[in-house]
Amino acid sequence: MAKLVGVTIEGMNMNRMVQYQYWDKETETLPREELEKFQLKLLRESVNRALRTPFYKKRLFQVGITSGDDMKSLQDLQKIPFTTKQDLRDAFPDGMLAVDRREIVRLHASSGTTGTPTTIYFTKKDLERWASYVARCIYGTGCTRDDVFQNMITYGLFTGGLGIHYGAEMVGMLVIPSGPGNTGRQFKMMKDHRTTVVHATPSFLLHLHSKLEEEGYTLSDLALRKAFAGAEPYSEDTRRRIEELWNIDVYNSYGLSEMNGPGVAFECQHKDGMHLWEDGYIAEIINPDTFEPVANGETGELVLTILCREAMPILRYRTRDLTSFYTEPCPCGRTHRRIRRITGRTDDMLIINGVNVFPSQIEEVIMGIKEVGNNYLIQVDKDGALDRLTVKTEVGPNIFMDDARPLNALKERIRHALQTTISINPKVELHEPGALPVSEGKAKRVIDTRPKDV
Amino acid sequence: MAKLVGVTIEGMNMNRMVQYQYWDKETETLPREELEKFQLKLLRESVNRALRTPFYKKRLFQVGITSGDDMKSLQDLQKIPFTTKQDLRDAFPDGMLAVDRREIVRLHASSGTTGTPTTIYFTKKDLERWASYVARCIYGTGCTRDDVFQNMITYGLFTGGLGIHYGAEMVGMLVIPSGPGNTGRQFKMMKDHRTTVVHATPSFLLHLHSKLEEEGYTLSDLALRKAFAGAEPYSEDTRRRIEELWNIDVYNSYGLSEMNGPGVAFECQHKDGMHLWEDGYIAEIINPDTFEPVANGETGELVLTILCREAMPILRYRTRDLTSFYTEPCPCGRTHRRIRRITGRTDDMLIINGVNVFPSQIEEVIMGIKEVGNNYLIQVDKDGALDRLTVKTEVGPNIFMDDARPLNALKERIRHALQTTISINPKVELHEPGALPVSEGKAKRVIDTRPKDV
Repeated sequence: MAKLVGVTIEGMNMNRMVQYQYWDKETETLPREELEKFQLKLLRESVNRALRTPFYKKRLFQVGITSGDDMKSLQDLQKIPFTTKQDLRDAFPDGMLAVDRREIVRLHASSGTTGTPTTIYFTKKDLERWASYVARCIYGTGCTRDDVFQNMITYGLFTGGLGIHYGAEMVGMLVIPSGPGNTGRQFKMMKDHRTTVVHATPSFLLHLHSKLEEEGYTLSDLALRKAFAGAEPYSEDTRRRIEELWNIDVYNSYGLSEMNGPGVAFECQHKDGMHLWEDGYIAEIINPDTFEPVANGETGELVLTILCREAMPILRYRTRDLTSFYTEPCPCGRTHRRIRRITGRTDDMLIINGVNVFPSQIEEVIMGIKEVGNNYLIQVDKDGALDRLTVKTEVGPNIFMDDARPLNALKERIRHALQTTISINPKVELHEPGALPVSEGKAKRVIDTRPKDV
Repeated sequence: MAKLVGVTIEGMNMNRMVQYQYWDKETETLPREELEKFQLKLLRESVNRALRTPFYKKRLFQVGITSGDDMKSLQDLQKIPFTTKQDLRDAFPDGMLAVDRREIVRLHASSGTTGTPTTIYFTKKDLERWASYVARCIYGTGCTRDDVFQNMITYGLFTGGLGIHYGAEMVGMLVIPSGPGNTGRQFKMMKDHRTTVVHATPSFLLHLHSKLEEEGYTLSDLALRKAFAGAEPYSEDTRRRIEELWNIDVYNSYGLSEMNGPGVAFECQHKDGMHLWEDGYIAEIINPDTFEPVANGETGELVLTILCREAMPILRYRTRDLTSFYTEPCPCGRTHRRIRRITGRTDDMLIINGVNVFPSQIEEVIMGIKEVGNNYLIQVDKDGALDRLTVKTEVGPNIFMDDARPLNALKERIRHALQTTISINPKVELHEPGALPVSEGKAKRVIDTRPKDV
């Protein structure tokens, strides 16, 4: 399957006919004009809700906004100042809470390893709406209640696990709440229950596949057809690689806890860009330096306003995620615009000897080289006064580490390809399969040991 | 609070008036006669459902049961053979499935470290009913939607986490899905969100308290009032100890994944025995050697028939858990009978030099001694031909390890108290607080290194 799709010409799948299915056809295919009218109505409600919070009351009064009615058109959104992660931390715990604390039935929180965690509150209605957006995403990939879904993402405070879980339950799939880790057990359950769909990080999907043989399974033991991959950025080449290794379709998932979690944007069966649910979110893409909107189709920082949460409205949130809009409508018929896969985060950007480099650019280059294995690591340190970039990659299973000549040739090919793309000459190291550290949650791909103040 | 309750005379709390509250008053206080009529109706339905499964069709036909109508009275239940954990394993994956696989929306599984895990299936309706039993338990302890609930139990395949989570959500409490571990973060969230109720294993509650000072908190930073403690057996003395340390009420929770998970039986505000929901389960207590019912009020093995699950009916399941019924009704007005805290499992029983000993007996003795700390370990090994029992306990925080005389006196007191109760002369070892291994999930309290065949 994976080999037949992914080739698109003028927005149409070349190699198969797809019968698109919709969870909520009316909303998903609402004409743009009506969709925008609906957004404006919801925006006014959200601004009114926000005005009930100490944080936004002050922030909005400062710019003369005292009522949702001040939003005469969607353009007026731009009068509202941006909200940042730091604002969320400063407003913790109650500064952005728009309902009585008794109305809250759930909270989720980021891990908060640095400073105060970001905490998001939900009312019962918020949870229902969140689940319905996730159900829309899942159903939109062609899944139905007949599917068996193994959720290999951490449950608990992290939104990825429970978020997708509730949506899958709404679709009526058989949900196996396996969580991450324990590869042997994952395979056993996949086989015993004929799992057809999994949700995992792209790095866990690669790691799991590398254990297939060792755990005593072959692909023919499994019934896997689809994977939802998210929680960390990954390149199109990584997607193709996962699809080919597993012989499945991989759907890209986008979300962030500040905007509920998963369910913000998701690929449809067409698998070319993620539909961002514009009845739940208003999306802008800005130049992170000038704060001006970029031209349609150009890359910039995604800014989101949540319309589908009453407990905690957040207006114009700077996600730090870099993406762009598709300018053409999707052949699936959904009118909600598509965003491109996240190519990086504004705060991920490495400045190496003055040159801007995104880890995603490096991934794209190395994952495009067949002989490169499934795990890699980017290291930046100081070599005297200069920055030094080292890219460590595992080699594929069929590469012999004993024979220096082809290894050196491969190293040189990787080095050259990287230098061409990122304009930096990196040191390349090749490692045996399995030699680099593996993470079962979000992969830690970049180690920057340079002093912070330089 | 904890110091005022727990003393009961003729079923009444001596020291406080309690305004009992019910989640589903009509069902919870149904007159016994009607309750038993209702059980019979549900039993017939369950037998009919079971007859749709390959396992029970064969098993029931063997004893001449071909229809739910063969259950003329609740007495007829005894015609049905017991179901064991091994039966569940043998019938895996579909042998006990009474619905089309498409109807299943969730599965849970035991960890299955030894052999095939026990796997339980749920339909959508099953999940709703399960949550409603858990809601009944939670509300019955006096919690309302105003409470803030931190669920310190593992989420995922284990039923304890998601089971209580869904019930708490139904009650409308603010649910913090913290999961276990990370004591610093647990305290921070308890303080930030004014957590009033937690769910944890008793050993984690003791462990967490031992970290209170180290993590920079005092009880007055917290708003904790209640804890649900379950997932491992514990003694009444352990409960009192947790209540005194935290100055809270601790409610005992009983459940097992074969019977959905938590929500089978739970203590009410009266805190004296766990109401077993007899509209969801038929409970019998049998002599595990003769399989005959014990006299009312006597201790034996709990056998349960689930009436509230359509996906996977299980009839007369031998839980291995040892308990007894209360013979008196509870002052709270609920008509559903109470069981005593689980004193052990038939398969936990240690035979030491021919004498039967339950780990719970040992716990009860040592936790009743004030100078003993919060962690202990039971070790059994061979000393030549004989078995040797070693009981290792930590001492409390105010005991100095430098002064041998009082330590030896304490050791001798523990030894003597144990010998009096279990008729075995143990070796006693005292350890510093924090010296014994800590588990954040179910505690591993017994290490038996004797060869298996002896």
